[in-house]
Amino acid sequence: MKHLFLTLLFGSFLLTITAQENTALTNAAPVDLAGDTQVVNELFRLALTESNVYPWLEHLCLKIGHRLSGSPQAEQAVDYSFELMRSMGLSAFKQPVMVPAWERGSKEIGFYRSSSGTQEEMNILALGGSVPTHPDGLYAEIIEVEDWTELEELGKEKIEGKIVFFNDKMPAENIYTFHSYGHCVKHRWGGAVEAAKYGAVGALVRSLNLRIDDFPHTGSMKYDEGIDSIPAAAVSTQDAETLHGMLERGEQVNVLMRMECSTGPDKQSYNVVGEIRGSEEPEKIILVGGHLDSWDVGHGAHDDGAGVMQSLGVLELLQKMNYQPKHTIRVVFFMNEENGLRGAKKYAAESEKKGWEHIAAIESDRGGFTPRGFHVEGSEEQLKQIQSWEAVLEKFGIHQVEEGGSGADIGPLKTDDNVLIGFVPDSQRYFDHHHSANDTFDTVNKRELELGTASIAALVYLIDKYGI
Amino acid sequence: MKHLFLTLLFGSFLLTITAQENTALTNAAPVDLAGDTQVVNELFRLALTESNVYPWLEHLCLKIGHRLSGSPQAEQAVDYSFELMRSMGLSAFKQPVMVPAWERGSKEIGFYRSSSGTQEEMNILALGGSVPTHPDGLYAEIIEVEDWTELEELGKEKIEGKIVFFNDKMPAENIYTFHSYGHCVKHRWGGAVEAAKYGAVGALVRSLNLRIDDFPHTGSMKYDEGIDSIPAAAVSTQDAETLHGMLERGEQVNVLMRMECSTGPDKQSYNVVGEIRGSEEPEKIILVGGHLDSWDVGHGAHDDGAGVMQSLGVLELLQKMNYQPKHTIRVVFFMNEENGLRGAKKYAAESEKKGWEHIAAIESDRGGFTPRGFHVEGSEEQLKQIQSWEAVLEKFGIHQVEEGGSGADIGPLKTDDNVLIGFVPDSQRYFDHHHSANDTFDTVNKRELELGTASIAALVYLIDKYGI
Repeated sequence: MKHLFLTLLFGSFLLTITAQENTALTNAAPVDLAGDTQVVNELFRLALTESNVYPWLEHLCLKIGHRLSGSPQAEQAVDYSFELMRSMGLSAFKQPVMVPAWERGSKEIGFYRSSSGTQEEMNILALGGSVPTHPDGLYAEIIEVEDWTELEELGKEKIEGKIVFFNDKMPAENIYTFHSYGHCVKHRWGGAVEAAKYGAVGALVRSLNLRIDDFPHTGSMKYDEGIDSIPAAAVSTQDAETLHGMLERGEQVNVLMRMECSTGPDKQSYNVVGEIRGSEEPEKIILVGGHLDSWDVGHGAHDDGAGVMQSLGVLELLQKMNYQPKHTIRVVFFMNEENGLRGAKKYAAESEKKGWEHIAAIESDRGGFTPRGFHVEGSEEQLKQIQSWEAVLEKFGIHQVEEGGSGADIGPLKTDDNVLIGFVPDSQRYFDHHHSANDTFDTVNKRELELGTASIAALVYLIDKYGI
Repeated sequence: MKHLFLTLLFGSFLLTITAQENTALTNAAPVDLAGDTQVVNELFRLALTESNVYPWLEHLCLKIGHRLSGSPQAEQAVDYSFELMRSMGLSAFKQPVMVPAWERGSKEIGFYRSSSGTQEEMNILALGGSVPTHPDGLYAEIIEVEDWTELEELGKEKIEGKIVFFNDKMPAENIYTFHSYGHCVKHRWGGAVEAAKYGAVGALVRSLNLRIDDFPHTGSMKYDEGIDSIPAAAVSTQDAETLHGMLERGEQVNVLMRMECSTGPDKQSYNVVGEIRGSEEPEKIILVGGHLDSWDVGHGAHDDGAGVMQSLGVLELLQKMNYQPKHTIRVVFFMNEENGLRGAKKYAAESEKKGWEHIAAIESDRGGFTPRGFHVEGSEEQLKQIQSWEAVLEKFGIHQVEEGGSGADIGPLKTDDNVLIGFVPDSQRYFDHHHSANDTFDTVNKRELELGTASIAALVYLIDKYGI
């Protein structure tokens, strides 16, 4: 034990511990608490002192920038990622996938004017996939609703010819902020369709942001066949509060929205994949991943630059440990999570075709914040097994291993036997940044990002060692 | 149960549950899991939707600003706090205490010049309590050390007449960053004394900051009788790296430090105290507190504006619940934690004189970040009792109830019977701000601050209900 500890301490040791060897160190406990704690401790030490995740993210954010599917920046990000994987000595490839090519065009113009004479610019951002307005803009009265039921109550008579203003606030009282997101996101996704059913000419959606500020937050939306496609934009929470105030005082408020969005033919893009081949069961894959694309504002730093670089950072940590995995450890940078999930679908289809067996897949797509735990999609036994590892992980701040959704990109890989896992960092600040110009590199704390990398690496190590 | 749930849900209910009544709801479990969870849930809901902690902190930071003991701002903060407590209907008083009156004077001038010709301004900040330099400044060669042992090895011959540059980096590998602080703080506290023993003419201490940036971090220091009092300043981590680089290349580096600090006669100040009197055992006190003073840069937002306002926010939440505590719940805003602890000592002395019985005291002084847990100073039984409450608290993100130090201000209140508790938020970002111009209001996340308030309130509720 002392020798193991010293060699780990000086980091110069070929780590080829197997489950069998480790069993000798323990009293038939479900985990080798002492041995595993030493390994996980070393993963955290390396993450906090030697990891390149932060400079990689800096390059992605500051040298490439935001990278919407189909954009030149997305292709630069593909090339950078592929070269990075190759430079680490990973077996890497680019998996072709055709992606949608929606473009924002020139920056939107937003403006309001109330019957009491107040007029001011307004911070709007076209929702991803929206049709443009007339080149001169759309100018119409707004009518506020909180939910579908209010649309129905108002009816066609009151809505026709107006812009529907969906002002559903993210509820503040949920501790896990994604629950609040889940509560409101339907208005962004389906608001244009529902409003158009009553003859609305546009949709303006309160940004999914728990703070009051001037950043509008975009995101994906849908149109339905047979229903008019009307322009839809997010408005900042501060402007939403102002609009609400004027309407509450009984003023009539007209809004100008001018948006140049367009959708071109699909473009060629790629998922980027790299791996360390397993030494014992190479045909069994443990996947870690996130998405390389982002919305076309800010840097896509938390969403999801952090997640892809953490995923690659997991393989870097294993390399620094000289760890020889039994299973193949594969990193996947998925393309087009934000507006199409084409990368996820393509990866899953290829996986089926080639018979890739994913025993586990872990997704990081909830920001580069301080780690809290994991959400597990699997059997009761798999959940319990991972929860039993909390004995090792709690010391490192991982306390919340719970049943829950894993992630959009790995979702299609679910089988009856495998387990899908979402990495869960602290959620308080995520929606300050998500899908907005405020999702920038400087808002990522280096240590929090590194702790996330180590947390995922620890889980990969435990899955590789014990199976799942 | 259904009625209780509904009334809690609508928040309009006089909460006078006692331990006896609650026992009926449970199977003699150590806590009434369902009932307590409902109450704690309501505390969190109120904190996230109705608490005034964030606007109070905004006033303290932006309308008053930093507030070093003895400064006019410290007295404004005392008046504001006292009026705030009275406006809430608390029984409040100001407890007089004489505090030291150290002043920084004009902003420091720092400058370096190397033998290769590099010369540049340098970000320095006098340590609290430092003597001034000569009015023209102190200009001398610097010599770098990492620890006391290096001072001894270099000896008087190499150190005499020079400025000792303590360049001990905060270790990155500790997950709990206060451990890294504990590792390095001795150089800030005692560096000037140790350097002066070898004839040094000044001390320059690398800032206690885990990031590389341009903010120097001040903090308290000591002089010893019989040893020359030499000027001492913190230097930013970025400048420390630059100085180190030049010295490593074998260059000679001279430094200019100009500081105008002075210490005047002690001044009158106050602790500010407010309370809700207990309905059953009013002579038994549960104390919550932090310190009102701050260093004289930034806003003292995390250190410790957050802590005092969270403490007051606990009483606000109990009021909003119409909760009638059995014990007296007392909030204390201590004066002069940063450079003298005079408020803590005075409060403890008065407490002794008046026979105040503190069954528990909780301090919040580790920043307004997302909650993690509590550090407990008490008996094994008390620790176990509080850990048993994790059954209620885990749902709200409180997982780390551990043995550990509580806080500097409540420390003197320890008896054989009572328990002292430190609130522990996530520590990753604390030393980005601590004691520097970067400790500003905008770096406090509203939700994280509110969750801390609710966490402490939940603990106060459980201690009040079950005793300790």
